Amino acid sequence: MTAEGSSRIRRSRPATLPVSVADAIERQIRDGAYKIGDKLPSLREMAELHKYAKNTVVTAFELLVSRGLIEPRRGAGYFVVEKPPSKAADDEAGSLGRAKDIVWLMREQLKTEPGALAIADGFPPVEWLSDVRLDKYHQKVVRTGLGSLFRYGSRFGYTPLREHLVRKLADFGIDAEPRQIVLTHGANEAMDIVIRYFVPPGGKVLVDDPGYYPLFGKLKMASAEVLGVPRLHDGPDLEVLEQLLITQRPRLFFTQSLAHNPTGSDLSAAKAFRVLQLAQKYDLLIVENDPLADFKPTSSPRLASLDQLERTIYIGSFSKSFSAALRVGFIACGADLASDLADLKALIHVSSSEYCERTVDVMLSEGHYQRHLTRLRSRLGEATEGARALFESVGANIFAKNAQSLYLWASMPGVDDSMALADALLPHNVRLAPGMIFSVDASTASPWSRYNVGAVMDPRFRKALQSVLMQLRSR
Amino acid sequence: MTAEGSSRIRRSRPATLPVSVADAIERQIRDGAYKIGDKLPSLREMAELHKYAKNTVVTAFELLVSRGLIEPRRGAGYFVVEKPPSKAADDEAGSLGRAKDIVWLMREQLKTEPGALAIADGFPPVEWLSDVRLDKYHQKVVRTGLGSLFRYGSRFGYTPLREHLVRKLADFGIDAEPRQIVLTHGANEAMDIVIRYFVPPGGKVLVDDPGYYPLFGKLKMASAEVLGVPRLHDGPDLEVLEQLLITQRPRLFFTQSLAHNPTGSDLSAAKAFRVLQLAQKYDLLIVENDPLADFKPTSSPRLASLDQLERTIYIGSFSKSFSAALRVGFIACGADLASDLADLKALIHVSSSEYCERTVDVMLSEGHYQRHLTRLRSRLGEATEGARALFESVGANIFAKNAQSLYLWASMPGVDDSMALADALLPHNVRLAPGMIFSVDASTASPWSRYNVGAVMDPRFRKALQSVLMQLRSR
Repeated sequence: MTAEGSSRIRRSRPATLPVSVADAIERQIRDGAYKIGDKLPSLREMAELHKYAKNTVVTAFELLVSRGLIEPRRGAGYFVVEKPPSKAADDEAGSLGRAKDIVWLMREQLKTEPGALAIADGFPPVEWLSDVRLDKYHQKVVRTGLGSLFRYGSRFGYTPLREHLVRKLADFGIDAEPRQIVLTHGANEAMDIVIRYFVPPGGKVLVDDPGYYPLFGKLKMASAEVLGVPRLHDGPDLEVLEQLLITQRPRLFFTQSLAHNPTGSDLSAAKAFRVLQLAQKYDLLIVENDPLADFKPTSSPRLASLDQLERTIYIGSFSKSFSAALRVGFIACGADLASDLADLKALIHVSSSEYCERTVDVMLSEGHYQRHLTRLRSRLGEATEGARALFESVGANIFAKNAQSLYLWASMPGVDDSMALADALLPHNVRLAPGMIFSVDASTASPWSRYNVGAVMDPRFRKALQSVLMQLRSR
Repeated sequence: MTAEGSSRIRRSRPATLPVSVADAIERQIRDGAYKIGDKLPSLREMAELHKYAKNTVVTAFELLVSRGLIEPRRGAGYFVVEKPPSKAADDEAGSLGRAKDIVWLMREQLKTEPGALAIADGFPPVEWLSDVRLDKYHQKVVRTGLGSLFRYGSRFGYTPLREHLVRKLADFGIDAEPRQIVLTHGANEAMDIVIRYFVPPGGKVLVDDPGYYPLFGKLKMASAEVLGVPRLHDGPDLEVLEQLLITQRPRLFFTQSLAHNPTGSDLSAAKAFRVLQLAQKYDLLIVENDPLADFKPTSSPRLASLDQLERTIYIGSFSKSFSAALRVGFIACGADLASDLADLKALIHVSSSEYCERTVDVMLSEGHYQRHLTRLRSRLGEATEGARALFESVGANIFAKNAQSLYLWASMPGVDDSMALADALLPHNVRLAPGMIFSVDASTASPWSRYNVGAVMDPRFRKALQSVLMQLRSR
């Protein structure tokens, strides 16, 4: 890895504190201040020397390990590695090297720091899910015959759950048969399977921009060329979309119609129709990712509802309205494609977990699940309203003003680069999801950030935000 | 798909009945007897016309659908598709096209036909697992706090289970820390992750030959060049191995040391040592797949036990001794690699299922699990002995005579091509796993077949085998 070759994201914008610390140490290594085989000062020494919090140094060291510059040796501390990995080595570790920055972001997302405010979270507050009683309904799962559940399941997944999903999709106005549904290990695996099926190395793929960065990571891992379609408040920018279709001839477009991550925006019915017209005209397949389906009214405009899975591959999940620990998601698409994707899934890991699938099936059968969803939606509506009121009170610009969305995409007055805001909020125990990380071209500063409406209502956040905005204004 | 381009396996050997039927219909389509858009005779007509069992025709049609030659139309029967898919289309569907034959074999494996004898099964008889009480111990799983289990887990997987695995590996003489263990969605996903990490398109990879064909499928999907190392009764053929290391410079060798699939053979300690010397000399990484670890004495010679995960990546599973419906497997390897593989896993599907992992953890904590394993091993030992006695009584040649193995690899007197034996056994409700399907070069006839020792003890199999051998002898 040359200095040039290392993280594009890190280099081109004001960085968070651990990243700055890591960058500084990287420079010292590159400049020869620490040589190959040298032991770095201990975490404690480093923290005391520079007056950093120990956690900051821990993160910085971890980052340097992930950059392949230092390595921990058991009980002895961190050492500069013999050969800083070359670009070639990065390529050798393949797929992963190409998505290293995104991997780091995902690691950060999986961390839970006690006391930290979950403003950057891609997940609803756990209290909202607490009436999903995985414990309470477990006895019913047992009664489905767990005592004799030993074998791999069908390559499509547990049939009763697929039949349930047929009814769920019918509520969305999507007409499907069980053989059009493939259960997956969460929505993320669903995307991965679709990419592995359709995208050859160098293949061109459209995505929402800003959009779901783990998807960008998966596409980079597949050596795809990722082309961003600007996301407006009511859906994709149709002019850019058509230009890209004409000039680049991509085959796939990954998009999220509802409660879009990160902008919180919904696709309008009119735009849904136009997107499908363009798909028809330019022979484009659309992958409609709908992880927050349960958070929105069933009647919300979906591409798959208009198109009936002709040119649309629909991906759903139970991670956000139920439990991400189950890892149950699904793909709905044409029957032939579903069969192929089920084959691909079998080739990768034989089958998904029938144990988990039976659990989801039992939960969906409970009347209480509908009540849970009703409550979830009303909580979300209230939180969205409250968050909007707070943001309006501080003069923020809100990208999309929907009735309910897990995310608000907003820019704060006087903030041109939300990385600066992220840095300023860090000492207040608030980790922010700055706009830049959701951008296909992660090198340009963005005034926007993604806010989890469930976390925004915490009075500590209001206080932190007001104080930080005042501080930034007085600079 | 040209006629030439279609299944290599099918073309070059006597086929099972459904495959023959499918081949015959394929010829008729290629020859123009059925034209594009034509409706094929119904399943019933076809069965009556040719005196096939209806199931045979169903399988044949399914096979033709998977070859892209015909398609079902709802309620109207099967039709010849507009354009038989071209080689290019196969490449476009990418990865999957390259492993189509193997995908079909895997589909067959996942099918359970009532009344069929599970001779070809890669799975222990369900009775052997019946004291794994997923139902009985479930209450304990609930008490681990399922009521608050909503989030994605750590990228490495559930820590208490990884700590358990540290102790389990210690029993095998493998010294590892929790950070060296990555939990996966079964052993198959573990292999897939390792392949995605290490194998570039065209990359050369060594495998046991005969070996685990779903692995060959995964490697083909990754566009790897698969090089077979002949498997002898005590491990890999070292001469061929060294030749391949010298001439081909592969980076990875996937091998199964214990109760090898399909040959049932165990690696000898002496060979284990020599394999590791070669790995050292030629800078080879070894992926040791150990799905039947629980079926063998803990002291059995493993590569990872000698090597201590320096050049060995160890893959384990709970699918065969516990439940395949849980989909819990793991990778143990060097700490840096484990961290990278955990990242790759996160990029693919965020995390594995903590719900399943907690269940496995609870089961492992039960004293009853050790009793289960003890009973499992003794059952396996008895079945192996019984199967060997039967085979010796009919004059079969047994490849490896271990104390206990789920598989016996045997050739029958007077049978040069086990496909003929497979065909002859089919009317007796016995599906056989003929040697050819486990071979890297699946075009050469093989006298061997893989027998599941748990199923061999069924008196119906003894009768069928004796009758078929007499019938083949009298030809």
